[in-house]
Amino acid sequence: MKKRLPEKDRESPIGVFDSGIGGLTVVREMRRLLPEEDILYFGDTARLPYGSKSPELIKRYALEDASFLYERGVKIIVVACHSASSWALAEIKSSFPVPVVGVVEPGAKAALRATKKGKIGVIGTRATISSGSYERALKEKNKRVEIVAQPTPLFVPLVEEGFLNHQATRLICQEYLKVFFPEGIDTLLLGCTHYPLLKPLMEKLLPKKVKIIDASFETASEVERILRENNLRKKRGKGFLKIYLSDITPEFEKVAERFLGERPSAIFRATLREYQR
Amino acid sequence: MKKRLPEKDRESPIGVFDSGIGGLTVVREMRRLLPEEDILYFGDTARLPYGSKSPELIKRYALEDASFLYERGVKIIVVACHSASSWALAEIKSSFPVPVVGVVEPGAKAALRATKKGKIGVIGTRATISSGSYERALKEKNKRVEIVAQPTPLFVPLVEEGFLNHQATRLICQEYLKVFFPEGIDTLLLGCTHYPLLKPLMEKLLPKKVKIIDASFETASEVERILRENNLRKKRGKGFLKIYLSDITPEFEKVAERFLGERPSAIFRATLREYQR
Repeated sequence: MKKRLPEKDRESPIGVFDSGIGGLTVVREMRRLLPEEDILYFGDTARLPYGSKSPELIKRYALEDASFLYERGVKIIVVACHSASSWALAEIKSSFPVPVVGVVEPGAKAALRATKKGKIGVIGTRATISSGSYERALKEKNKRVEIVAQPTPLFVPLVEEGFLNHQATRLICQEYLKVFFPEGIDTLLLGCTHYPLLKPLMEKLLPKKVKIIDASFETASEVERILRENNLRKKRGKGFLKIYLSDITPEFEKVAERFLGERPSAIFRATLREYQR
Repeated sequence: MKKRLPEKDRESPIGVFDSGIGGLTVVREMRRLLPEEDILYFGDTARLPYGSKSPELIKRYALEDASFLYERGVKIIVVACHSASSWALAEIKSSFPVPVVGVVEPGAKAALRATKKGKIGVIGTRATISSGSYERALKEKNKRVEIVAQPTPLFVPLVEEGFLNHQATRLICQEYLKVFFPEGIDTLLLGCTHYPLLKPLMEKLLPKKVKIIDASFETASEVERILRENNLRKKRGKGFLKIYLSDITPEFEKVAERFLGERPSAIFRATLREYQR
């Protein structure tokens, strides 16, 4: 962890990737916490979503995404996609000589700090839940914690369509969350970057005592810590944000603003090496 | 249209492709109508869905999919994806020396036969609706027809999750279909292969006089006609169905059965040339 990189690397950008634009919720938190830092974001909108695809394919896509960032000289790689963090983190860590941060570990740590009864619920895409990555991350730190995991695949399209307060979303939310009621969880981990936008609705539907953990915020804190400990923090200036997408539609730009909380100033079309025939 | 291909081509399979497994609704109708015919199906599950992606990208993907089938010696290419039919049909037709059938044209023809008042509603993915392909296909044959088009992007994930009779699906359906009520349409065109599974629900929500047109059935009839007119019908035997997917998950296999109406006997992982690094 304490690899000392050359001084100049402090000025290098942070690299973040996701299957699409949901990872911008992590960027949003980083922009607040690390306003001096430059950020390169890659969203693989040409092949999204990852959450319904197979582990082998997610691994291949994630390595290509990480290469795209690494070739642009980033000082740290943030895997802001729960499906990729669940299936490909070890491969990315062993493939690139920079620190690599996923979204699973920081969320799991925060959930363990929050829980009193040791009963934690986890929601995510099919790929994330079936990976068992959250169970592993939680159990590794506390063998006695009880975990209830539930895939909630309709949340991503509902969020992308802006159905945040719709009665249909409330019904689907009720259906998905009912598994947690007999279990008596006191902490719910949001295992997907899209889900923080449904947090207000979930708070209404869950018992008051249930604390909701947003992995996007926790991941940004973890990035701050790693940069600080490795003496990689940029100290001055106002950081830029460059967004690369492998496919661009007007909808992506609109939704990007919703996730980011600001209007993105620069969106570029990116060509993965795979696409260069 | 009347290209005469060599006699042996009668024995060649029919090629069908889609962004995923929805196109199996077209295969289902073809298996009924053309039981002797062999069918090769390619579903680009590694990159699905197409409906939320850009026109340029849909064109590139569709040409790669069509090549995959053409290289395997198919006698006709069926583009069983509305987004690809909407954006890439002309390119595919000019690139391959076999007949090419999309799903837009057959559906449009059937809608014109069905309508009495000349007021037709169309629903589909964002890509299909924004392409204006149904408007063009309808207006080309009847300038005076009135068209109301509505994108319904949540229908695909709802169908894939099996939420066919859920109250949430009913609410979303009501929301999407309400645009048609003041318009007084008498015909509704289902511009996506997934939508026939929601037909029973839509029938309950729409006025009785509204006729629902399922492009999958119409496309199968069109394929039958083209094969017959080109003397390309296989005459004997029981046709096989070979399904190639660019990514395979247990969910795809389960959902494939729902679309196909039978258990698929053979699913193979396909490697597009793009993937051969």
